[in-house]
Amino acid sequence: MPILVQKFGGSSMADVACIQNVARRVAASKKDSPQGLVVVVSAMGKTTDKLVGMAREIASQPHGREMDMLLATGEQVSIALLCMALHELGLKAVSMTGAQAGIITENRHNKAKIINIDTEAIQKHLAEDCIVVVAGFQGVTPDQQITTLGRGGSDTTAVALAGALDAAVCEIYTDVDGVYTTDPNVVPEAHKLAEISYEEMLELAHLGAKVLHPRSVECAKKYGTMVHVRSSFNTNEGTYVKPMKDLEIHRPVTGVTADAKQAKVAIRHVPDRPGVAAQLFGALAEKAISVDMIIQSVQENLTNDIAFTVHEDDLTQAIAITQQVAEKLGARDVVYDQDVAKVSIVGVGMIGTPGIAAEMFEALSHARINIQMISTSEIKISCVVARSEVKQAMQVIHNHFVLPEGSAAENEELALL
Amino acid sequence: MPILVQKFGGSSMADVACIQNVARRVAASKKDSPQGLVVVVSAMGKTTDKLVGMAREIASQPHGREMDMLLATGEQVSIALLCMALHELGLKAVSMTGAQAGIITENRHNKAKIINIDTEAIQKHLAEDCIVVVAGFQGVTPDQQITTLGRGGSDTTAVALAGALDAAVCEIYTDVDGVYTTDPNVVPEAHKLAEISYEEMLELAHLGAKVLHPRSVECAKKYGTMVHVRSSFNTNEGTYVKPMKDLEIHRPVTGVTADAKQAKVAIRHVPDRPGVAAQLFGALAEKAISVDMIIQSVQENLTNDIAFTVHEDDLTQAIAITQQVAEKLGARDVVYDQDVAKVSIVGVGMIGTPGIAAEMFEALSHARINIQMISTSEIKISCVVARSEVKQAMQVIHNHFVLPEGSAAENEELALL
Repeated sequence: MPILVQKFGGSSMADVACIQNVARRVAASKKDSPQGLVVVVSAMGKTTDKLVGMAREIASQPHGREMDMLLATGEQVSIALLCMALHELGLKAVSMTGAQAGIITENRHNKAKIINIDTEAIQKHLAEDCIVVVAGFQGVTPDQQITTLGRGGSDTTAVALAGALDAAVCEIYTDVDGVYTTDPNVVPEAHKLAEISYEEMLELAHLGAKVLHPRSVECAKKYGTMVHVRSSFNTNEGTYVKPMKDLEIHRPVTGVTADAKQAKVAIRHVPDRPGVAAQLFGALAEKAISVDMIIQSVQENLTNDIAFTVHEDDLTQAIAITQQVAEKLGARDVVYDQDVAKVSIVGVGMIGTPGIAAEMFEALSHARINIQMISTSEIKISCVVARSEVKQAMQVIHNHFVLPEGSAAENEELALL
Repeated sequence: MPILVQKFGGSSMADVACIQNVARRVAASKKDSPQGLVVVVSAMGKTTDKLVGMAREIASQPHGREMDMLLATGEQVSIALLCMALHELGLKAVSMTGAQAGIITENRHNKAKIINIDTEAIQKHLAEDCIVVVAGFQGVTPDQQITTLGRGGSDTTAVALAGALDAAVCEIYTDVDGVYTTDPNVVPEAHKLAEISYEEMLELAHLGAKVLHPRSVECAKKYGTMVHVRSSFNTNEGTYVKPMKDLEIHRPVTGVTADAKQAKVAIRHVPDRPGVAAQLFGALAEKAISVDMIIQSVQENLTNDIAFTVHEDDLTQAIAITQQVAEKLGARDVVYDQDVAKVSIVGVGMIGTPGIAAEMFEALSHARINIQMISTSEIKISCVVARSEVKQAMQVIHNHFVLPEGSAAENEELALL
């Protein structure tokens, strides 16, 4: 029997009426195609925030174990209520906590990773033609301690279950129609993508995180699970996230994304000798500062300039650490700029399509936008620009590369150039 | 190491401030005497009502399994928050769901009975000098289905744990000072009892249910666990519930209780032959109608009158069933009265103290209260009177038998008469 996994997030489960809507939606899926149906749900609307609020009233730093004990209740309420609503529609349904569903995690609280799923109990219920409703976001350690999976946890539960159950597809219901070529609030020409590869989806993290957490994409990629991101408010097809080899349309550029919260730090005229970069980035890593782009360029007199970007919240600490390292190394100075942003184009089609980078630089240049840093990967090109220019940069790049919806033929043509 | 079990109900856990109060109380107990401390808590204030309300919005008759899944979250929130509050006070504490605490129940939802407690996990934490905070009211079947224990569930969890852990005492914290000789709202002379036997407590169920559910008393009796019912708002000694043999004071009458929701049904002139009572009460039992008092008296011409009392809510159904049986048996007629109440005196001291019944009838007669039915057990005498006279009956009986607080000597003297 083919298995379908569906996931409904907190906004789809906001109140009793919403839960009844979800039940009708699940019932329709069950009716349309007789198959094993597993439904993963998040906590109702603001439940998690309320629980966190109570915990913070009591303790500024609640213990991780107790926090998980507390938060896991949110999803447990959801699964019970959704089952009741399914029963009212005359369907067989059974709720399962993460522990009951066999979702085993590492022994780490608040952001545990799933290490194994024992699907035996779920399979037993599916064999009885029962809809299985599983609490997302939670699991249990091998010695029965309740854990939660952290951000994007319910998506991860759904995708991991789909993988473990060898489901045909994992449907992620959300409040948007799917994955867009870029942020429609910034670029009105943005349109929904019919499909996207795991790799692109990951690179579009900042864009995509609103609809599908990168972690769940990693998980889908690992198992080769097809994910269908779609709206819980209509029955339109959304965006299919799938293996690169299965994509039907190859475009050089799939999406445009931006991160406006970047800051740039540069250490100038540092001696050009082995171990310099390791010393600087080792010191930053020690303080858990996540570095995004790194550019090293050779200067005159056997010295280098090393520039890198960090999240703006980490800037003050990054400057202090960099200055310490600069002194030790005998570098000239450390400069920084917190008014920068990163704009990126992503597309598996740029592999084997030369000239995409040049086109991007040309488009920016044409709009008189100065490029401060450049970084490229196989399927992504990123440019750091002044923060005030980032929206314009998104627009010109998007409208240069990404053609309007429905012009797949033209896209294909472009891919063949 | 001696073990103390403490239980705090929903009103003690109403909000964050209340939970912090409970934490301070628990911390004081821990400081006063170094011992293994197990704390059982209920859901916060109105949480259970809110959860039930949501369920009822979705389904008029939610499935028992899903209802348990839903309701169990209430206590889970409480244990997590209380642990956080204990951590803030610098104490080691760990929360445990019913399942984690090893509370195994029968496979029956909404009112499961505890069949076994595997205390291994609790003992392990106690050995590490950790305060163990257990979710009351819930357990798990041998195949890991979440169950709840029904009314009085958290009291039962506490008492059962105290029994399984061989605790010195089980403290039940509540919003009253202890168990009173009668309802102080009806009889101003009512006073708190220093101690009471399990048997008396059970007979005073209607009085006592407000502070300690009869089910937990049964459980305490089974294990011989001493229960201390006391206020969560002060540090006064409350009432100790303990084995009859351990009572220090023997009184003929410990308490006076009344049930104003009774109704009386009588089947008159039914042929006096074997099987008549079985036929009538079998028919009532089949419809799950609980019968309280039963009186059979011999009439002339080899016929009997059989009278019994039921809860007033069951009266209509009881009359219908009784009339069917009456016709079959060829009885004369069925009469009923819904304006009756039952007043009872309870006391282990009446064993071996003749004349107590006569004193009770005399006291009622003196107040010109007519007695409609009488029923006695070893430690209880009940009279059915007109509902309008029940409060007066309580007063005259209480003030005849139960002497003011502090007059233990006189009580003992009376017991020796």
